[in-house]
Amino acid sequence: MSAILTPLELRKRIRSGEHEGNTSGYAQGFVQCNIVILPADWAAEFLQFCQLNQKPCPLVGMAAQPGQTGLPDLGADLDIRTDIPSYRVFENGQLTSERSDIKDLWREDLVTFALGCSFSFEEALTADGLEVRNISEGGNVPMYRSNIACRSAGRFSGDMVVSMRPFKAADAIRAVQICTRFPSVHGAPVHLGDPALIGIEDINRTDYGDPVTLNENELPVFWACGVTPQVALEQAKPPFCITHSPGCMLVTDLPNSRLAVM
Amino acid sequence: MSAILTPLELRKRIRSGEHEGNTSGYAQGFVQCNIVILPADWAAEFLQFCQLNQKPCPLVGMAAQPGQTGLPDLGADLDIRTDIPSYRVFENGQLTSERSDIKDLWREDLVTFALGCSFSFEEALTADGLEVRNISEGGNVPMYRSNIACRSAGRFSGDMVVSMRPFKAADAIRAVQICTRFPSVHGAPVHLGDPALIGIEDINRTDYGDPVTLNENELPVFWACGVTPQVALEQAKPPFCITHSPGCMLVTDLPNSRLAVM
Repeated sequence: MSAILTPLELRKRIRSGEHEGNTSGYAQGFVQCNIVILPADWAAEFLQFCQLNQKPCPLVGMAAQPGQTGLPDLGADLDIRTDIPSYRVFENGQLTSERSDIKDLWREDLVTFALGCSFSFEEALTADGLEVRNISEGGNVPMYRSNIACRSAGRFSGDMVVSMRPFKAADAIRAVQICTRFPSVHGAPVHLGDPALIGIEDINRTDYGDPVTLNENELPVFWACGVTPQVALEQAKPPFCITHSPGCMLVTDLPNSRLAVM
Repeated sequence: MSAILTPLELRKRIRSGEHEGNTSGYAQGFVQCNIVILPADWAAEFLQFCQLNQKPCPLVGMAAQPGQTGLPDLGADLDIRTDIPSYRVFENGQLTSERSDIKDLWREDLVTFALGCSFSFEEALTADGLEVRNISEGGNVPMYRSNIACRSAGRFSGDMVVSMRPFKAADAIRAVQICTRFPSVHGAPVHLGDPALIGIEDINRTDYGDPVTLNENELPVFWACGVTPQVALEQAKPPFCITHSPGCMLVTDLPNSRLAVM
């Protein structure tokens, strides 16, 4: 009965190893976050990159100072070293290990960033009666490297990764309205219609995630995606960096509705 | 120096015959309205038709009772019999005359309806930096009879007439956001992309207005149009009915910004 766990209960199960893997569908109604952990001498530039590219990198919270393991604004009794089901460790831009906690890797110079994730707006779309194709087909959302350039900040740069969900036109218009209310989880779509106009040559060939059915009377609708900062990190190659593993998010105590700007 | 006339000054010039013809571009920043005037025994059904079809027939105001010639909520010292540059008179659904005032036709059983018009949202789009093609090309907006059925109310029914403005996808998304704030001037678009999906076979063959350039990297974006009630009136054929002539609107004292719901 995972759906009735509170975010705190879920985090405790994750911490104890009782819950492993994907957090999708758990603690519904609460914000889940992408996590990036960087040494302090890279943190200021990454913060600026997020500030300049808010649609793909919407900052929901960050540690108040280096070394801080709690994020009290995001969750009670939260420990960033243990409360994510799976972490990825990168050295010089290379994935070097995947692990269920980072206690022994923790350093006093590490700064934690929590970025909004599409789960929140997908929940808002579903609640409005729209069909979110990647959910109904049970796959990972299709994602593509677009040719929309992010604005650079110091050593961070790259093109925007976008996620795609197909909708009939009237539903696409409704999706724009719904997602506009949620700027901190990627906000309104960045493109709809012809994929070639943003550098996507074959909609059936995803760069991440799984393809979904796109019917003839539907438009592909593209959102800025939280994989964008991961691509920027791969390119910037900081000596040390930790992220969550795809789909294994930080579950917060923030209700999704609190992210609505109106 | 038409742009600096207040709505009241403009209405006085219209009343005196000093201003004739189109009101587009005059009294900028203020709401202009489509007008429908019907005998009382048709008014209740028309009101219900507007209520059921708010996107094409957004009611901004109406006379408080039959015979009332002022609309104090919409303008000071306003006289609906004289303050529109050109009126169309219909008998049994047939256009029988076009005239600059309706003083001698006025009856104590006539009820006036004022419906929102696209000028208001076009101004909001332009203010945001978007190019509105029918304005930049100096023509009337292209309009089409769609196959989107209106909901019927008594003797009133018909398909929705839509107006079309082309935009690149990112601007189309922005247009949805802007127009969502203005439900009483047709609100968000009703369709975008493939015209055939709403029964439009040839985008270059308009049913009303003039075609505009549609570039390859643009989507046609379709809004519910204030011509819809005119089509419903043509079909319902009330024995007597008066409307404004196309482009010759009632200029009100309401600032466009007052229509924004947020």
